[in-house]
Amino acid sequence: MSAYDTNNIFAKILRGEIPSHRVYEDDATIAFMDVMPQAEGHMLVVPKAPSRNLLDADAASLPALIAAVQKIAVAAKEAFDADGVTIMQFNEAPAGQSVFHLHFHVIPRRDGVPLKPHSGTMEDGAVLAANAEKVRQAL
Amino acid sequence: MSAYDTNNIFAKILRGEIPSHRVYEDDATIAFMDVMPQAEGHMLVVPKAPSRNLLDADAASLPALIAAVQKIAVAAKEAFDADGVTIMQFNEAPAGQSVFHLHFHVIPRRDGVPLKPHSGTMEDGAVLAANAEKVRQAL
Repeated sequence: MSAYDTNNIFAKILRGEIPSHRVYEDDATIAFMDVMPQAEGHMLVVPKAPSRNLLDADAASLPALIAAVQKIAVAAKEAFDADGVTIMQFNEAPAGQSVFHLHFHVIPRRDGVPLKPHSGTMEDGAVLAANAEKVRQAL
Repeated sequence: MSAYDTNNIFAKILRGEIPSHRVYEDDATIAFMDVMPQAEGHMLVVPKAPSRNLLDADAASLPALIAAVQKIAVAAKEAFDADGVTIMQFNEAPAGQSVFHLHFHVIPRRDGVPLKPHSGTMEDGAVLAANAEKVRQAL
């Protein structure tokens, strides 16, 4: 497995070098809107601690991360009046990982609506901002 | 959201009423082979505490669960010489959940090999037994 690259896009978001529609932050974790959502309200939960993915993550960092994933999942269901929530976490490119900083996808789901492909187009910033505000209200 | 049903299949596996190819157990968690694997070595990590999914899970039960998920993911990569590991956790049927006891899917992945559909056929018991033994050796 390759080493952690400090210039991955989530590291840049964590350092504030790239903007994001942030919905949640605690000492160990941030959550923000995915700019290429596979469904309305798709969010990413990202630990502040650097690791490439779950395989090399410090075990001590995981309790705070999963607590944040649960909070965001509950808020996602409420904010988007969703019928369910799909959570995915990919380790290495053959498993679907495209940014090499550990992250969990939290995706509100509606009955009968399949996920859009990951390689979709960038969502409009105003839509992301409005969705982020819905999540903040639910949290 | 419906109440937890104590007769779901994972509750029966936890009580030993239904057999499983178990690869791991600690005070809070078990892991066993998925009988309808979406890829070779597909496993399920299941907390002993009853909850329907992550949305109603006791937050106190999550640190042990995510620790086990990490252990199983690392072992999965080694045991099956995988190129990556996909982790999925579904909340409610519209999100992909079919058994209503909280569980994480841990799926070894190979470059260029897509996941098989979930509604596949039952894997041969001898194959599952052999795969379970590979994971036990890796743990």
